[in-house]
Parts: sequence; C-alpha cells; structure tokens
Amino acid sequence: VIGVDWGTTRCRAYRLCGEDVRDYRESELGIQHVEADAFGRALQSLIGPWLVDGERQVLLAGMVGSRQGWRETAYLPCPVSTDDVARALVPIPYPDAVVLLAPGVSAADGTGVPELMRGEEAQIFGADIERGSVCLPGTHSKWVRVEERRIVEFSTYLTGDVFAALRDHTILRRSIREGPDEFTAFDAGVSRASDPGGLLHHLFGIRALGLAQRLTDVAAGSYLSGLLIGHEVGAAVQSARPVHLIGATQLTGLYARAIVARAAWT
Amino acid sequence: VIGVDWGTTRCRAYRLCGEDVRDYRESELGIQHVEADAFGRALQSLIGPWLVDGERQVLLAGMVGSRQGWRETAYLPCPVSTDDVARALVPIPYPDAVVLLAPGVSAADGTGVPELMRGEEAQIFGADIERGSVCLPGTHSKWVRVEERRIVEFSTYLTGDVFAALRDHTILRRSIREGPDEFTAFDAGVSRASDPGGLLHHLFGIRALGLAQRLTDVAAGSYLSGLLIGHEVGAAVQSARPVHLIGATQLTGLYARAIVARAAWT
Repeated sequence: VIGVDWGTTRCRAYRLCGEDVRDYRESELGIQHVEADAFGRALQSLIGPWLVDGERQVLLAGMVGSRQGWRETAYLPCPVSTDDVARALVPIPYPDAVVLLAPGVSAADGTGVPELMRGEEAQIFGADIERGSVCLPGTHSKWVRVEERRIVEFSTYLTGDVFAALRDHTILRRSIREGPDEFTAFDAGVSRASDPGGLLHHLFGIRALGLAQRLTDVAAGSYLSGLLIGHEVGAAVQSARPVHLIGATQLTGLYARAIVARAAWT
Repeated sequence: VIGVDWGTTRCRAYRLCGEDVRDYRESELGIQHVEADAFGRALQSLIGPWLVDGERQVLLAGMVGSRQGWRETAYLPCPVSTDDVARALVPIPYPDAVVLLAPGVSAADGTGVPELMRGEEAQIFGADIERGSVCLPGTHSKWVRVEERRIVEFSTYLTGDVFAALRDHTILRRSIREGPDEFTAFDAGVSRASDPGGLLHHLFGIRALGLAQRLTDVAAGSYLSGLLIGHEVGAAVQSARPVHLIGATQLTGLYARAIVARAAWT
C-alpha cells in the first residue's frame, strides 16, 4: 500500500509494508503548485517507480481532498473512527492502481463556529491513540480529543501562520532577526502569555523590550514563538491529559516545553 | 505657535492661535521617509509660509523624538503632567524660529515590561481630560489612565498593525476582500472575542466560516476587525470609566460600538 499525505505546500508519499515504511519520497508539488488537471501526473512523478515495482493500492489524505485539490470530498462530522473514514473513501480513476481519496473531518466548538480538518486525522489514526488530548503543532495547529480511538472534538489555532505574519509584516520585524532557538527567551515568552493584558498587548512588549535593549533581535524571535505557543497552550490545555504530540522534533520539543511550564502554574 | 505631530508615516502641522487652529498642513514626510540630515528641510517645506508670515515658536511631538527621528529625546516616567513635559523640551537649532522637541513618556505595566509613548501624550493633554480612561485607537492603540490631568499609566496594543498583517499575509487573505464596514459582522466578531479559546483559535474561525459560506469575503474584514478590537477592549476596559476616545471618526465609532457591547456583557 502507498499512503500519501498531500498538503498545501508539500506532498509526502510512503511505501508501506504492514506498519513499516519501506520507502519514502517527498516533493514540493503541494496542491497550491499543481494545476487542476495535473494531479494525476503529479502523483505519477512521485510514486511511478513503486507502481512499476508492483504496488497497486494508493490512499490519499490531506488538502488534496479540498475544493482546491484533485477532487473535493465531504467532511465527516465528529465522532469519527477509522471505519467511518474507510467507508467514505472516494475512488479516483487512475491507470494501473486503485486510488482512494480520504474525506475530511468536521466538528463544532460549541459556539456554532465550524472546525475543519484534512490530513491530521490520518496522523492521529496512524499513531493509534486510544484516548487523551492530541496536539499537532504547525501553521494551523490542531488540538484533538480522542476517546475509544475516535476523534470526538477538536480546535484549530492559527499559531504558525500568525507567527510568520507578525515576524515579517508588523513593527516587530525591526526587533527580530532569524537565529537558533534561544530557550531562555522562549520560556520568557511562554511565561508572559499568562500575564493579564492579552496577546495584542503582549506583542507590543517585544518591541518595547527591544528598544530598552533588554531583548536581543535573535532572542526576540524565540520570545515571539514562546508568547504565541504559550497563548495557544494556555487556551487549549484542558483537563484532558496526557497530551500526545505529533509532529517534527524541533516544534514538538518547544510545545512540550510550553505544556510542562503551563502545567507547573496550574 | 506652530504645533507639529510628526509621526512615522505622516507629518501634521497646526498653526495655533490660543485654542483655535488657524491653519493646517499635512505631508507624507513621516520620519521613515526623511533622511537623517533632512529634517530641517522637511520642516521648512511644511511650515515655511507661516514663518514668513511671522510665526516664531514651533513645538514638535511624536516619533520625530525617537532614535530614528531628528534627535532622540528621553522618556519621562509616569506620572507625567504638562508641566513635566514643558520642563523637558529640547531646543533644536533652527534659523528664524525657536524649535522645541517634546520628550516621550514611559511606564511599566506592573510586570516589568516597559511601555513607551511618543506623540499621544500631546493629544491627551490637548483634550484636557481631568480623569478617566483614554483610548487612542490605531496601528498601536494606547489605553491611558489619567488622574488630575496627569498620565499615570498606559498600555499599548498592536491591534491595527496585527489587523493588516493577518488580512494580507495569512490564510485569511483568501477569505477577506476589502469593502465598506459591515456592522453586523463587526458585532459578531466583537461578540466572538468573549468566547473561550483565545484569539489564535478565533482567527481560524474566520477561515472556517468562509469555507462554510456563512461569512462573505467582504463581511470577513469587518468580522476580523471586530474580533481584534473586541479582544483589545476586553483586556483593556477596566473599572476606570468613562472611556474617552481620541482619533478619527470611523475608527473611534467602531471602538465605541465594541466598548458599549462589552459593557453590556459585564
């Protein structure tokens, strides 16, 4: 079986054998870089050699099932299990292989505002989590509650997206220079997030601390990261513990730091 | 007397006679558009005709006193009165006129993070407010507490700056099109700000409501504005009432709407 995590900016393909990954290929042909009639060719360029080698089943998950993707699939309302997803897979005509496209997952946050997910559900089911809170940090972080291996509710935070916009397109750009993570500054940002005043006020503090020469421009990037992640974690961490983190090592490491700090205060 | 409000992006000059404005001139020669050695010429281009006409005293306030301005002046720590400012004016050599540059004002928000102000203090003293809370909405909104006509403390919110960055440089740009203010959507954003989940979560809702076709792209801009102003007002409005609003009519009107809505909940 070939599993493909096909997102907005990247496309990642896994050649699977049971629970093992036999091979892995990645390309920058995220859906925003693929013309509407070119999805088949884009897939072929990535997994063609594996098809020649005999693979015949392909599962696609992620933004490839969105309106801007190959074909739009429905959103399954929570609670959602792997069986629910399996029943809702959409076949796509393709030469020499059975290609199945996964649905999305939807929820409401209790206030009537919809929640949407495409792709993270595959990572959650793949991690085989029985119960608890699952955090998938990123451009649009997801916090997901899992019970009896089903996704029962979730919330999205625009954290990574907001980080890049604030760093590059506000007055803060004059106070921030890219550099390695500085954990002391990151922790100070996380801690600041629990002060009164709210995020919009805390953000100005980065500029003010820079002008007062109490925060270097390299440390300011880590402080901003800690501030945003601190606000996210503070809003998202509920009584549901443990928190499972799914993602790349650097980012999940920072989230773990913020979650531990938050737990120490409460 | 000539009063000049010289900010980052614009320069506004007022020819005053007692409390009346006899004449007004504005230019786009904000400090970010003026070379370090060209401030004298920039001022001359704006107020030259008034000097020819006999004016001899010029008061400058705003970012022109910052490190990137004509000359850096100190920050006076709160509490600050008009007399304190008058005593700290810095003379700048200038042919045919006495030019005095105002200091800035600084405060601490109780958590050790500094607060800085350059120019808003002139607007507050000009409004002759005896006591209460003063809100100056804008790119970097200020909320100022005034007692016995002195500025005793203040907080800054990055609201306007963040609004532009989010609208133009995150996923929300796909959900937002410029258009006239839509008050229903603005009010919905203000109301949303009081829900649990925090700003980073509420922001994603704009994208989700758009995808669900429950928020048009023109209304989404007003919703984002209401959401951010609602978060700012929710954090800033304390027991100190009344709130005095200083600024342009459209923006102060929106803030008044948000403050009234917030007062109705609490």
